Amino acid sequence: MYLDHAATSWPKHPDVLDAMDRYARECGAASGRGQYQSANQADAILHSTRRGISRLIHGASPNSIAFFSNGTQAINAAIAGIVRDGDHVVTTAAEHNSVLRPLSHLARTRNVNLTIVDCDRDGVVCANDILSAVTDATRLVAVTSASNVTGAEQPIQEIGQGLKQASQTPSSPAFLCDAAQSFGYLRIDVEAAEIDLLAAPGHKGSGGPQGTGFLYVSPAWHDRITASIFGGTGSQSESMEMPESMPAKLEPGNLNVAAIAGWNVAIEQLASRNDEHYAAALAAVSKQLNDGLRSIPSVTVLGSPARLPIVSLTIDGFPPSDLSAILDAEFGIEARAGLHCAARIHSFLGSAPEGTLRISGSAETTKQEIAFVIDAFRQIADSVH
Amino acid sequence: MYLDHAATSWPKHPDVLDAMDRYARECGAASGRGQYQSANQADAILHSTRRGISRLIHGASPNSIAFFSNGTQAINAAIAGIVRDGDHVVTTAAEHNSVLRPLSHLARTRNVNLTIVDCDRDGVVCANDILSAVTDATRLVAVTSASNVTGAEQPIQEIGQGLKQASQTPSSPAFLCDAAQSFGYLRIDVEAAEIDLLAAPGHKGSGGPQGTGFLYVSPAWHDRITASIFGGTGSQSESMEMPESMPAKLEPGNLNVAAIAGWNVAIEQLASRNDEHYAAALAAVSKQLNDGLRSIPSVTVLGSPARLPIVSLTIDGFPPSDLSAILDAEFGIEARAGLHCAARIHSFLGSAPEGTLRISGSAETTKQEIAFVIDAFRQIADSVH
Repeated sequence: MYLDHAATSWPKHPDVLDAMDRYARECGAASGRGQYQSANQADAILHSTRRGISRLIHGASPNSIAFFSNGTQAINAAIAGIVRDGDHVVTTAAEHNSVLRPLSHLARTRNVNLTIVDCDRDGVVCANDILSAVTDATRLVAVTSASNVTGAEQPIQEIGQGLKQASQTPSSPAFLCDAAQSFGYLRIDVEAAEIDLLAAPGHKGSGGPQGTGFLYVSPAWHDRITASIFGGTGSQSESMEMPESMPAKLEPGNLNVAAIAGWNVAIEQLASRNDEHYAAALAAVSKQLNDGLRSIPSVTVLGSPARLPIVSLTIDGFPPSDLSAILDAEFGIEARAGLHCAARIHSFLGSAPEGTLRISGSAETTKQEIAFVIDAFRQIADSVH
Repeated sequence: MYLDHAATSWPKHPDVLDAMDRYARECGAASGRGQYQSANQADAILHSTRRGISRLIHGASPNSIAFFSNGTQAINAAIAGIVRDGDHVVTTAAEHNSVLRPLSHLARTRNVNLTIVDCDRDGVVCANDILSAVTDATRLVAVTSASNVTGAEQPIQEIGQGLKQASQTPSSPAFLCDAAQSFGYLRIDVEAAEIDLLAAPGHKGSGGPQGTGFLYVSPAWHDRITASIFGGTGSQSESMEMPESMPAKLEPGNLNVAAIAGWNVAIEQLASRNDEHYAAALAAVSKQLNDGLRSIPSVTVLGSPARLPIVSLTIDGFPPSDLSAILDAEFGIEARAGLHCAARIHSFLGSAPEGTLRISGSAETTKQEIAFVIDAFRQIADSVH
């Protein structure tokens, strides 16, 4: 029983895998390089996927979407492409290491001044704390849409709108949102939330294959974001510099067209689903998991229940890694133990230094499965006594 | 008829695609993050692939192999991980933009002193020219194993051994070889050629899926290469810095385990093939292509025939892009026109500024196919008169 959807979602829809396999078997060409038929087919798949993602997030245009091999690469491109030596950056203690580590590197090596805003015991930051941390030197504000440890959502729209209201100058900071845990699960509207840069993997909530991710760059930042990875783009090849245009400036080297062909189908499925039904299903999974696990006396569930079915817990006397091993060996439940690549949030949740056992489900996780999980925890908890 | 193997090889072996599809359908877990069974399966696939690649190139150990989503990412990791502000770097005019562009960026922004050694009319550099360009300040020497425009091989072993003989100090430069066009086609021995860093995509000669690539880092450079992309590694997550150990330090974010599962099979196939037969088949394709195309009076083939079946040509009166369009529309031949993402080599070959029409075959390209291609060019050439 796979309950590590916050790491990568599984299973993928057969149509997604079929599209991927079909591309690899029947076409297989590289994109953006040749002018022959199968290369044009590759280009059409990329364009269709860019358009699909752009529409889902209410983005400005397909060419505002650049592809990456995962969310981490997309976040790195955003940070390295925007932050300059000596800039000030505001981020939060709830971030994943894909945000904290590149920023911390710039702080150590490039004189970047980094403010890490605290979160509360639920892992949630206060929008005003973010807005108050912004100075005239702030170039970037980076906030995750939802914690990968507890599923706690951050007040993204409040932050984005607040940033835009506070400063209408051309030097106002870029707002980067790491939507790794939200994209595909919860609706994100970059226009409404005034998000300048939105990064997400394709292989989590959106149901795409491994090896996919994107960065949305709002038109106001197309010219200002610079490349941080360099190479062949199939365009302006006589130049030793990357092209100036989006998305080519951020996409050197061969893209994984086969994976994107699969992702394209997943994005089409997302676009046509009934969002209300889906949100209700997701919330029901979260509620059942939270209600059940919180009712077990020796289980401590960190933070408050979230819309996302991500639950982090501890049991006194069981290191999280032992819990994960027992769940796997004795119950066939696959869940992850540890810090979940989030360096700072555990001090606020009360789960430092060992971290948590994290159960992360999907909208397809059944009531029976959840009941089985809750029963497993009851048995483990009982075994302490 | 697909003749753009230098961009990406196609078709992939069915066993490669089956392994990929099977992983995605039956396992699907992320690697390096969980301790449960399917996550362990993912880790085992990565280890097996690292071991297979390391053996193929005569590398020091599986953990000297870091995975990337293509060759460009691997080269960027090598360059950004080794070159420091103010260093001197030696490279060649025969390089792909995946080498020239990141180096050129460092020259513009980080005070890096870049020497680009000329090649001859065949696109080949002279080992002595490289060795003479090295100074006490040289931190990196970056040379491609073979041109993606003409297939011309560079004297890698002579350069590598010469570099090591010239300097036994700890400050001797790192030797980076871009094996994009060679890996999987021609044997490369990093020990014999004294290569410190070897980068290659998986989706070209080695027959792996799109979305794969690797960087080999010799043990002497494990501690000295630094991360340039930062994020979650599933290890030491309490730290805001990347782990110090290879390959984790170069592999933040989720890897594409499904693609690597396919690549693993391709690497096993490579390891068990008869190298002599394969080399003979490759050479036969190159010879037939060269002999045929060079016998057409109005066709100019650039450079000398190479072991790799990559042939770049021009026909007076036909811009390469027109040639590509005619080949595609009238003969169903898919080949690529232009500069092939190589900014400098065309001035030496005599194909600047328009570039060439490039035919790139594989060992599986049949005699009949080549005869058909040659006949197509005869017809096109005849149509001028």
